[in-house]
Amino acid sequence: MTAGGRLYGLGIGPGDPELITLKALRLLRSAAVVAYPAPEIGESLVRSIAASYLSSTQEEFAIRLPMSPERFPAETVYDRAAEVLGRHLAAGRDVAVLCEGDPFFYGSFMYLFARLAKRFPVEAVPGVSSLTACAGALEMPLAARNDVFSIVPAPLSAEAITARIRESDAAAVIKVGRHFAKVREVLAGLDLLPQARYIEHASMASQRILPLTKVDPTDVPYFSMILVHRRGEAWT
Amino acid sequence: MTAGGRLYGLGIGPGDPELITLKALRLLRSAAVVAYPAPEIGESLVRSIAASYLSSTQEEFAIRLPMSPERFPAETVYDRAAEVLGRHLAAGRDVAVLCEGDPFFYGSFMYLFARLAKRFPVEAVPGVSSLTACAGALEMPLAARNDVFSIVPAPLSAEAITARIRESDAAAVIKVGRHFAKVREVLAGLDLLPQARYIEHASMASQRILPLTKVDPTDVPYFSMILVHRRGEAWT
Repeated sequence: MTAGGRLYGLGIGPGDPELITLKALRLLRSAAVVAYPAPEIGESLVRSIAASYLSSTQEEFAIRLPMSPERFPAETVYDRAAEVLGRHLAAGRDVAVLCEGDPFFYGSFMYLFARLAKRFPVEAVPGVSSLTACAGALEMPLAARNDVFSIVPAPLSAEAITARIRESDAAAVIKVGRHFAKVREVLAGLDLLPQARYIEHASMASQRILPLTKVDPTDVPYFSMILVHRRGEAWT
Repeated sequence: MTAGGRLYGLGIGPGDPELITLKALRLLRSAAVVAYPAPEIGESLVRSIAASYLSSTQEEFAIRLPMSPERFPAETVYDRAAEVLGRHLAAGRDVAVLCEGDPFFYGSFMYLFARLAKRFPVEAVPGVSSLTACAGALEMPLAARNDVFSIVPAPLSAEAITARIRESDAAAVIKVGRHFAKVREVLAGLDLLPQARYIEHASMASQRILPLTKVDPTDVPYFSMILVHRRGEAWT
Protein backbone atom coordinates (compact mmCIF):
# COMPACT_ATOMS: atom_id res chain seq x y z
CA MET A 1 0.00 0.00 0.00
CA THR A 2 1.51 3.34 -1.04
CA ALA A 3 1.25 6.56 0.94
CA GLY A 4 -1.29 8.91 -0.52
CA GLY A 5 -4.84 10.08 -0.38
CA ARG A 6 -7.84 8.10 0.76
CA LEU A 7 -10.65 6.86 -1.44
CA TYR A 8 -14.13 7.21 0.06
CA GLY A 9 -17.26 5.58 -1.26
CA LEU A 10 -19.89 7.86 0.23
CA GLY A 11 -23.46 6.64 0.60
CA ILE A 12 -25.43 9.80 -0.25
CA GLY A 13 -28.80 8.23 0.46
CA PRO A 14 -31.84 7.55 -1.69
CA GLY A 15 -32.52 11.00 -3.15
CA ASP A 16 -33.61 13.51 -0.52
CA PRO A 17 -30.43 15.56 0.15
CA GLU A 18 -31.38 15.65 3.83
CA LEU A 19 -30.96 11.87 4.04
CA ILE A 20 -27.16 12.15 3.85
CA THR A 21 -25.31 11.24 7.06
CA LEU A 22 -23.17 13.67 9.04
CA LYS A 23 -20.15 11.49 8.28
CA ALA A 24 -20.68 11.40 4.51
CA LEU A 25 -21.24 15.16 4.51
CA ARG A 26 -18.04 15.83 6.46
CA LEU A 27 -15.94 13.62 4.17
CA LEU A 28 -17.59 15.00 1.05
CA ARG A 29 -16.78 18.57 2.05
CA SER A 30 -13.16 17.76 2.89
CA ALA A 31 -12.33 15.81 -0.28
CA ALA A 32 -10.17 17.50 -2.90
CA VAL A 33 -11.70 15.43 -5.70
CA VAL A 34 -15.35 14.39 -6.10
CA ALA A 35 -16.23 11.63 -8.58
CA TYR A 36 -19.63 10.25 -9.56
CA PRO A 37 -21.28 8.03 -12.14
CA ALA A 38 -23.06 9.86 -14.94
CA PRO A 39 -24.77 8.98 -18.20
CA GLU A 40 -22.82 9.28 -21.45
CA ILE A 41 -24.44 12.67 -22.02
CA GLY A 42 -26.16 14.87 -19.44
CA GLU A 43 -26.42 15.30 -15.72
CA SER A 44 -25.45 12.81 -13.00
CA LEU A 45 -28.39 11.95 -10.72
CA VAL A 46 -26.23 11.40 -7.65
CA ARG A 47 -24.35 14.66 -8.26
CA SER A 48 -27.67 16.50 -8.39
CA ILE A 49 -28.60 15.00 -5.00
CA ALA A 50 -25.36 16.23 -3.43
CA ALA A 51 -25.08 19.47 -5.45
CA SER A 52 -25.75 21.84 -2.55
CA TYR A 53 -22.87 20.29 -0.58
CA LEU A 54 -20.22 20.72 -3.30
CA SER A 55 -17.76 23.58 -3.47
CA SER A 56 -16.36 25.22 -6.59
CA THR A 57 -12.83 24.59 -5.28
CA GLN A 58 -13.31 20.82 -5.57
CA GLU A 59 -12.17 19.04 -8.68
CA GLU A 60 -14.97 16.97 -10.21
CA PHE A 61 -14.70 13.81 -12.28
CA ALA A 62 -17.74 12.29 -14.01
CA ILE A 63 -17.51 8.56 -14.63
CA ARG A 64 -19.54 8.46 -17.83
CA LEU A 65 -21.15 5.12 -18.55
CA PRO A 66 -21.76 4.32 -22.22
CA MET A 67 -25.25 3.85 -23.63
CA SER A 68 -24.11 0.91 -25.77
CA PRO A 69 -22.07 -1.29 -23.44
CA GLU A 70 -21.46 -3.89 -26.17
CA ARG A 71 -19.47 -1.33 -28.15
CA PHE A 72 -17.71 0.20 -25.15
CA PRO A 73 -17.75 -2.07 -22.08
CA ALA A 74 -18.13 -0.79 -18.53
CA GLU A 75 -14.85 -2.52 -17.59
CA THR A 76 -12.98 -0.07 -19.80
CA VAL A 77 -14.75 2.86 -18.16
CA TYR A 78 -13.86 1.70 -14.65
CA ASP A 79 -10.28 0.88 -15.67
CA ARG A 80 -9.85 4.40 -16.96
CA ALA A 81 -11.62 5.98 -13.94
CA ALA A 82 -9.39 3.98 -11.59
CA GLU A 83 -6.36 5.26 -13.49
CA VAL A 84 -7.43 8.91 -13.20
CA LEU A 85 -8.50 8.64 -9.56
CA GLY A 86 -5.38 6.60 -8.75
CA ARG A 87 -3.24 9.51 -9.94
CA HIS A 88 -5.09 11.87 -7.56
CA LEU A 89 -4.68 9.41 -4.68
CA ALA A 90 -0.99 8.89 -5.41
CA ALA A 91 -0.56 12.66 -5.29
CA GLY A 92 -2.05 12.69 -1.79
CA ARG A 93 -5.51 13.98 -2.69
CA ASP A 94 -8.55 12.45 -1.01
CA VAL A 95 -11.20 11.30 -3.48
CA ALA A 96 -14.91 11.05 -2.60
CA VAL A 97 -17.04 8.90 -4.88
CA LEU A 98 -20.74 9.76 -4.60
CA CYS A 99 -22.97 6.70 -4.38
CA GLU A 100 -26.77 6.67 -4.54
CA GLY A 101 -28.08 4.86 -1.50
CA ASP A 102 -25.26 2.76 -0.08
CA PRO A 103 -21.88 2.12 -1.77
CA PHE A 104 -21.91 -1.66 -1.27
CA PHE A 105 -25.59 -2.45 -1.92
CA TYR A 106 -26.02 -3.01 -5.68
CA GLY A 107 -23.81 0.02 -6.29
CA SER A 108 -21.14 0.67 -8.88
CA PHE A 109 -18.59 1.82 -6.30
CA MET A 110 -17.50 -1.79 -5.84
CA TYR A 111 -15.92 -1.73 -9.31
CA LEU A 112 -13.60 1.09 -8.25
CA PHE A 113 -13.06 -0.63 -4.92
CA ALA A 114 -11.98 -3.79 -6.76
CA ARG A 115 -9.44 -1.79 -8.75
CA LEU A 116 -8.03 0.53 -6.08
CA ALA A 117 -8.34 -1.08 -2.62
CA LYS A 118 -5.07 -2.99 -2.92
CA ARG A 119 -3.09 0.17 -3.67
CA PHE A 120 -4.78 2.84 -1.53
CA PRO A 121 -6.69 3.10 1.75
CA VAL A 122 -10.39 2.86 0.94
CA GLU A 123 -13.43 3.42 3.12
CA ALA A 124 -17.05 2.71 2.25
CA VAL A 125 -19.29 4.98 4.32
CA PRO A 126 -22.72 3.36 4.59
CA GLY A 127 -25.78 5.30 3.51
CA VAL A 128 -29.56 5.05 3.65
CA SER A 129 -30.54 2.61 0.91
CA SER A 130 -33.59 2.99 -1.32
CA LEU A 131 -34.89 -0.20 0.29
CA THR A 132 -35.68 1.43 3.62
CA ALA A 133 -36.55 4.77 1.99
CA CYS A 134 -39.27 2.96 0.01
CA ALA A 135 -40.55 1.30 3.18
CA GLY A 136 -40.71 4.64 4.98
CA ALA A 137 -42.50 6.39 2.13
CA LEU A 138 -44.98 3.52 1.73
CA GLU A 139 -45.50 3.44 5.53
CA MET A 140 -44.83 -0.29 5.23
CA PRO A 141 -42.53 -2.05 7.70
CA LEU A 142 -40.33 -4.45 5.72
CA ALA A 143 -39.74 -7.32 8.11
CA ALA A 144 -40.03 -8.29 11.77
CA ARG A 145 -38.76 -10.92 14.19
CA ASN A 146 -37.69 -14.07 12.29
CA ASP A 147 -38.96 -13.04 8.84
CA VAL A 148 -36.82 -14.06 5.88
CA PHE A 149 -36.53 -11.03 3.62
CA SER A 150 -35.31 -11.30 0.03
CA ILE A 151 -34.18 -8.73 -2.48
CA VAL A 152 -35.05 -9.92 -5.96
CA PRO A 153 -33.95 -8.09 -9.14
CA ALA A 154 -36.82 -7.83 -11.63
CA PRO A 155 -34.69 -8.73 -14.68
CA LEU A 156 -34.65 -12.37 -13.47
CA SER A 157 -37.05 -14.88 -15.07
CA ALA A 158 -40.65 -15.13 -13.87
CA GLU A 159 -39.85 -18.62 -12.56
CA ALA A 160 -36.89 -17.40 -10.52
CA ILE A 161 -38.82 -14.44 -9.11
CA THR A 162 -41.75 -16.69 -8.21
CA ALA A 163 -39.51 -19.17 -6.39
CA ARG A 164 -37.61 -16.50 -4.43
CA ILE A 165 -40.79 -14.70 -3.31
CA ARG A 166 -42.53 -17.96 -2.43
CA GLU A 167 -39.66 -18.92 -0.10
CA SER A 168 -39.64 -15.57 1.73
CA ASP A 169 -41.88 -13.92 4.28
CA ALA A 170 -41.34 -10.59 2.57
CA ALA A 171 -39.48 -9.30 -0.47
CA ALA A 172 -38.40 -6.25 -2.38
CA VAL A 173 -38.42 -6.53 -6.16
CA ILE A 174 -35.88 -3.97 -7.37
CA LYS A 175 -34.96 -2.51 -10.77
CA VAL A 176 -38.56 -3.01 -11.92
CA GLY A 177 -38.48 -0.74 -14.99
CA ARG A 178 -39.65 -2.54 -18.14
CA HIS A 179 -40.16 -5.78 -16.18
CA PHE A 180 -43.26 -4.49 -14.38
CA ALA A 181 -45.87 -6.58 -16.25
CA LYS A 182 -43.94 -9.79 -15.57
CA VAL A 183 -43.60 -9.00 -11.86
CA ARG A 184 -47.27 -8.12 -11.50
CA GLU A 185 -48.18 -11.44 -13.13
CA VAL A 186 -45.87 -13.30 -10.74
CA LEU A 187 -47.50 -11.62 -7.73
CA ALA A 188 -50.99 -12.39 -9.08
CA GLY A 189 -49.97 -16.03 -9.54
CA LEU A 190 -48.84 -16.14 -5.91
CA ASP A 191 -52.09 -14.46 -4.73
CA LEU A 192 -49.97 -11.68 -3.25
CA LEU A 193 -51.25 -8.67 -5.21
CA PRO A 194 -53.25 -7.27 -2.25
CA GLN A 195 -50.10 -7.35 -0.08
CA ALA A 196 -47.86 -5.68 -2.71
CA ARG A 197 -47.08 -1.95 -2.97
CA TYR A 198 -45.42 0.01 -5.79
CA ILE A 199 -43.24 3.12 -5.52
CA GLU A 200 -40.89 5.02 -7.83
CA HIS A 201 -38.17 7.60 -7.03
CA ALA A 202 -38.59 7.20 -3.26
CA SER A 203 -37.74 10.34 -1.26
CA MET A 204 -37.14 12.41 -4.42
CA ALA A 205 -39.32 15.31 -5.57
CA SER A 206 -40.62 12.99 -8.31
CA GLN A 207 -41.67 10.26 -5.84
CA ARG A 208 -44.86 8.47 -6.93
CA ILE A 209 -46.89 5.78 -5.18
CA LEU A 210 -49.54 3.90 -7.16
CA PRO A 211 -51.71 0.84 -6.69
CA LEU A 212 -50.22 -1.96 -8.81
CA THR A 213 -53.41 -2.06 -10.84
CA LYS A 214 -52.98 1.60 -11.86
CA VAL A 215 -49.37 1.38 -13.03
CA ASP A 216 -48.79 1.76 -16.77
CA PRO A 217 -46.24 -0.99 -17.53
CA THR A 218 -44.77 1.09 -20.36
CA ASP A 219 -44.01 3.99 -18.00
CA VAL A 220 -42.05 2.45 -15.12
CA PRO A 221 -38.64 3.95 -14.35
CA TYR A 222 -35.53 1.95 -13.41
CA PHE A 223 -35.66 3.48 -9.91
CA SER A 224 -38.85 1.75 -8.89
CA MET A 225 -39.57 -0.96 -6.38
CA ILE A 226 -42.33 -3.33 -5.36
CA LEU A 227 -42.52 -4.33 -1.70
CA VAL A 228 -44.55 -7.28 -0.54
CA HIS A 229 -45.17 -8.85 2.84
CA ARG A 230 -46.92 -12.20 2.98
CA ARG A 231 -48.79 -11.29 6.19
CA GLY A 232 -49.82 -7.93 4.78
CA GLU A 233 -48.44 -6.19 7.84
CA ALA A 234 -45.07 -7.17 9.25
CA TRP A 235 -46.10 -6.58 12.86
CA THR A 236 -48.87 -9.19 12.87
CA MET B 1 -57.21 11.60 12.48
CA THR B 2 -57.18 14.18 15.29
CA ALA B 3 -55.20 17.41 15.26
CA GLY B 4 -52.08 17.15 17.36
CA GLY B 5 -48.39 16.42 17.32
CA ARG B 6 -46.55 14.21 14.89
CA LEU B 7 -44.98 10.86 15.71
CA TYR B 8 -41.55 10.30 14.14
CA GLY B 9 -39.74 6.98 13.94
CA LEU B 10 -36.18 8.19 13.53
CA GLY B 11 -33.56 5.86 12.07
CA ILE B 12 -30.51 6.76 14.15
CA GLY B 13 -28.16 4.46 12.26
CA PRO B 14 -26.12 1.42 13.28
CA GLY B 15 -24.14 2.83 16.23
CA ASP B 16 -21.64 5.49 15.16
CA PRO B 17 -23.41 8.77 16.13
CA GLU B 18 -22.00 10.34 12.96
CA LEU B 19 -24.09 7.93 10.86
CA ILE B 20 -27.30 9.79 11.69
CA THR B 21 -28.90 11.67 8.79
CA LEU B 22 -29.37 15.44 8.70
CA LYS B 23 -33.13 14.85 8.63
CA ALA B 24 -33.23 12.59 11.67
CA LEU B 25 -31.01 15.02 13.57
CA ARG B 26 -33.23 18.00 12.73
CA LEU B 27 -36.40 16.19 13.79
CA LEU B 28 -34.77 14.78 16.90
CA ARG B 29 -33.69 18.24 18.04
CA SER B 30 -37.11 19.77 17.43
CA ALA B 31 -39.20 17.09 19.18
CA ALA B 32 -40.67 17.93 22.58
CA VAL B 33 -40.70 14.27 23.62
CA VAL B 34 -38.03 11.64 22.90
CA ALA B 35 -38.89 7.95 23.41
CA TYR B 36 -36.68 4.87 23.03
CA PRO B 37 -36.63 1.16 23.80
CA ALA B 38 -34.63 0.18 26.86
CA PRO B 39 -34.00 -2.94 28.91
CA GLU B 40 -36.03 -3.53 32.04
CA ILE B 41 -33.15 -2.13 34.10
CA GLY B 42 -30.27 -0.01 32.84
CA GLU B 43 -29.30 2.14 29.90
CA SER B 44 -30.89 2.21 26.45
CA LEU B 45 -28.39 1.43 23.67
CA VAL B 46 -30.09 3.65 21.12
CA ARG B 47 -30.32 6.54 23.58
CA SER B 48 -26.59 6.25 24.20
CA ILE B 49 -25.97 6.52 20.43
CA ALA B 50 -28.04 9.72 20.22
CA ALA B 51 -27.08 11.10 23.65
CA SER B 52 -24.99 14.01 22.36
CA TYR B 53 -27.94 15.27 20.31
CA LEU B 54 -30.44 15.39 23.18
CA SER B 55 -31.31 18.47 25.17
CA SER B 56 -32.22 18.67 28.85
CA THR B 57 -35.41 20.52 27.89
CA GLN B 58 -36.78 17.46 26.10
CA GLU B 59 -39.04 15.08 27.95
CA GLU B 60 -37.75 11.50 27.76
CA PHE B 61 -39.73 8.27 27.88
CA ALA B 62 -38.03 4.88 28.10
CA ILE B 63 -40.05 1.99 26.70
CA ARG B 64 -38.77 -0.70 29.05
CA LEU B 65 -39.01 -4.22 27.69
CA PRO B 66 -39.36 -6.98 30.26
CA MET B 67 -36.76 -9.68 30.72
CA SER B 68 -39.43 -12.35 31.15
CA PRO B 69 -41.90 -11.76 28.32
CA GLU B 70 -44.02 -14.77 29.32
CA ARG B 71 -44.89 -13.06 32.60
CA PHE B 72 -45.28 -9.57 31.13
CA PRO B 73 -45.82 -9.63 27.36
CA ALA B 74 -44.37 -7.03 24.99
CA GLU B 75 -47.91 -6.27 23.74
CA THR B 76 -48.76 -4.80 27.16
CA VAL B 77 -45.60 -2.67 27.07
CA TYR B 78 -46.41 -1.24 23.63
CA ASP B 79 -50.07 -0.71 24.56
CA ARG B 80 -49.00 1.34 27.54
CA ALA B 81 -46.30 3.22 25.60
CA ALA B 82 -48.84 4.07 22.89
CA GLU B 83 -51.18 5.39 25.58
CA VAL B 84 -48.51 7.65 27.10
CA LEU B 85 -47.17 8.87 23.74
CA GLY B 86 -50.73 9.28 22.45
CA ARG B 87 -51.44 11.74 25.27
CA HIS B 88 -48.39 13.82 24.26
CA LEU B 89 -49.48 13.74 20.61
CA ALA B 90 -53.05 14.69 21.47
CA ALA B 91 -51.67 17.66 23.42
CA GLY B 92 -49.85 18.82 20.27
CA ARG B 93 -46.36 17.68 21.22
CA ASP B 94 -44.15 16.04 18.58
CA VAL B 95 -42.73 12.70 19.67
CA ALA B 96 -39.46 11.28 18.28
CA VAL B 97 -38.92 7.56 18.75
CA LEU B 98 -35.24 6.62 18.46
CA CYS B 99 -34.66 3.51 16.35
CA GLU B 100 -31.38 1.65 15.94
CA GLY B 101 -30.64 1.34 12.24
CA ASP B 102 -33.86 1.88 10.34
CA PRO B 103 -37.35 2.09 11.91
CA PHE B 104 -39.00 -0.36 9.49
CA PHE B 105 -36.25 -2.97 9.11
CA TYR B 106 -36.67 -5.54 11.92
CA GLY B 107 -37.28 -2.66 14.32
CA SER B 108 -39.68 -2.33 17.22
CA PHE B 109 -41.01 1.04 16.02
CA MET B 110 -43.56 -0.81 13.89
CA TYR B 111 -45.42 -1.85 17.06
CA LEU B 112 -45.99 1.80 17.97
CA PHE B 113 -46.80 2.57 14.34
CA ALA B 114 -49.46 -0.16 14.40
CA ARG B 115 -51.05 1.41 17.47
CA LEU B 116 -50.84 5.12 16.65
CA ALA B 117 -50.81 5.63 12.86
CA LYS B 118 -54.60 5.62 12.55
CA ARG B 119 -54.99 8.41 15.13
CA PHE B 120 -51.98 10.66 14.50
CA PRO B 121 -49.72 11.69 11.63
CA VAL B 122 -46.71 9.37 11.66
CA GLU B 123 -43.48 9.51 9.67
CA ALA B 124 -40.76 6.86 9.53
CA VAL B 125 -37.46 8.54 8.66
CA PRO B 126 -35.16 5.94 7.11
CA GLY B 127 -31.72 5.36 8.59
CA VAL B 128 -28.53 3.50 7.81
CA SER B 129 -29.17 -0.14 8.69
CA SER B 130 -26.65 -2.45 10.33
CA LEU B 131 -26.76 -4.48 7.12
CA THR B 132 -24.84 -1.94 5.07
CA ALA B 133 -22.77 -0.80 8.07
CA CYS B 134 -21.50 -4.39 8.41
CA ALA B 135 -20.69 -4.51 4.69
CA GLY B 136 -18.75 -1.24 4.91
CA ALA B 137 -16.79 -2.31 7.97
CA LEU B 138 -15.99 -5.72 6.43
CA GLU B 139 -15.05 -4.02 3.13
CA MET B 140 -17.39 -6.53 1.53
CA PRO B 141 -19.87 -5.44 -1.15
CA LEU B 142 -23.18 -7.18 -0.44
CA ALA B 143 -24.71 -7.70 -3.86
CA ALA B 144 -24.38 -6.61 -7.48
CA ARG B 145 -26.35 -6.64 -10.73
CA ASN B 146 -29.01 -9.39 -10.64
CA ASP B 147 -27.93 -11.04 -7.37
CA VAL B 148 -30.68 -12.33 -5.13
CA PHE B 149 -29.86 -11.22 -1.59
CA SER B 150 -31.56 -12.74 1.46
CA ILE B 151 -31.72 -11.69 5.07
CA VAL B 152 -31.99 -14.78 7.24
CA PRO B 153 -32.56 -14.64 11.02
CA ALA B 154 -30.29 -17.09 12.84
CA PRO B 155 -33.01 -18.35 15.24
CA LEU B 156 -34.55 -20.29 12.31
CA SER B 157 -33.83 -24.02 12.00
CA ALA B 158 -30.62 -25.25 10.35
CA GLU B 159 -32.74 -26.69 7.53
CA ALA B 160 -34.49 -23.37 6.88
CA ILE B 161 -31.23 -21.39 6.98
CA THR B 162 -29.57 -23.90 4.63
CA ALA B 163 -32.42 -23.67 2.12
CA ARG B 164 -32.58 -19.86 2.16
CA ILE B 165 -28.81 -19.45 1.71
CA ARG B 166 -28.67 -22.13 -1.00
CA GLU B 167 -31.29 -20.28 -3.04
CA SER B 168 -29.51 -16.90 -2.82
CA ASP B 169 -26.41 -15.42 -4.41
CA ALA B 170 -25.60 -13.68 -1.15
CA ALA B 171 -27.05 -13.51 2.33
CA ALA B 172 -26.86 -11.81 5.70
CA VAL B 173 -27.50 -14.01 8.71
CA ILE B 174 -28.72 -11.65 11.43
CA LYS B 175 -29.34 -11.97 15.18
CA VAL B 176 -26.57 -14.59 15.36
CA GLY B 177 -26.04 -14.54 19.17
CA ARG B 178 -26.30 -18.00 20.69
CA HIS B 179 -27.07 -19.54 17.27
CA PHE B 180 -23.50 -19.11 16.00
CA ALA B 181 -22.45 -22.79 16.10
CA LYS B 182 -25.52 -23.83 14.12
CA VAL B 183 -24.93 -21.17 11.47
CA ARG B 184 -21.25 -22.04 11.11
CA GLU B 185 -22.22 -25.69 10.60
CA VAL B 186 -24.76 -24.70 7.95
CA LEU B 187 -22.13 -22.68 6.09
CA ALA B 188 -19.63 -25.54 6.31
CA GLY B 189 -22.26 -27.92 4.93
CA LEU B 190 -22.77 -25.57 1.99
CA ASP B 191 -19.00 -25.24 1.42
CA LEU B 192 -19.36 -21.50 1.94
CA LEU B 193 -17.12 -20.97 4.99
CA PRO B 194 -14.32 -19.35 2.96
CA GLN B 195 -16.79 -16.81 1.54
CA ALA B 196 -18.36 -15.96 4.92
CA ARG B 197 -17.38 -13.06 7.21
CA TYR B 198 -18.30 -12.37 10.83
CA ILE B 199 -18.73 -9.00 12.56
CA GLU B 200 -20.24 -7.78 15.82
CA HIS B 201 -21.30 -4.26 16.90
CA ALA B 202 -20.60 -2.76 13.46
CA SER B 203 -19.62 0.94 13.54
CA MET B 204 -19.62 1.02 17.37
CA ALA B 205 -16.54 1.49 19.54
CA SER B 206 -16.86 -2.20 20.44
CA GLN B 207 -16.84 -3.34 16.79
CA ARG B 208 -15.03 -6.67 16.31
CA ILE B 209 -14.25 -8.62 13.15
CA LEU B 210 -13.09 -12.22 13.46
CA PRO B 211 -12.53 -15.18 11.15
CA LEU B 212 -15.43 -17.59 11.67
CA THR B 213 -12.97 -20.22 12.87
CA LYS B 214 -11.81 -17.92 15.71
CA VAL B 215 -15.24 -17.03 17.09
CA ASP B 216 -16.12 -18.44 20.51
CA PRO B 217 -19.73 -19.64 20.05
CA THR B 218 -20.45 -18.95 23.74
CA ASP B 219 -19.45 -15.29 23.38
CA VAL B 220 -21.46 -13.99 20.43
CA PRO B 221 -23.64 -10.94 21.05
CA TYR B 222 -27.14 -10.43 19.64
CA PHE B 223 -25.82 -7.57 17.49
CA SER B 224 -23.68 -9.74 15.29
CA MET B 225 -23.95 -10.68 11.66
CA ILE B 226 -22.49 -13.12 9.16
CA LEU B 227 -22.28 -12.00 5.55
CA VAL B 228 -21.69 -14.45 2.74
CA HIS B 229 -21.40 -14.07 -1.02
CA ARG B 230 -21.38 -17.19 -3.14
CA ARG B 231 -18.87 -15.73 -5.63
CA GLY B 232 -16.63 -14.53 -2.80
CA GLU B 233 -16.59 -11.05 -4.28
CA ALA B 234 -19.79 -9.45 -5.50
CA TRP B 235 -18.11 -7.61 -8.36
CA THR B 236 -16.89 -10.76 -10.15
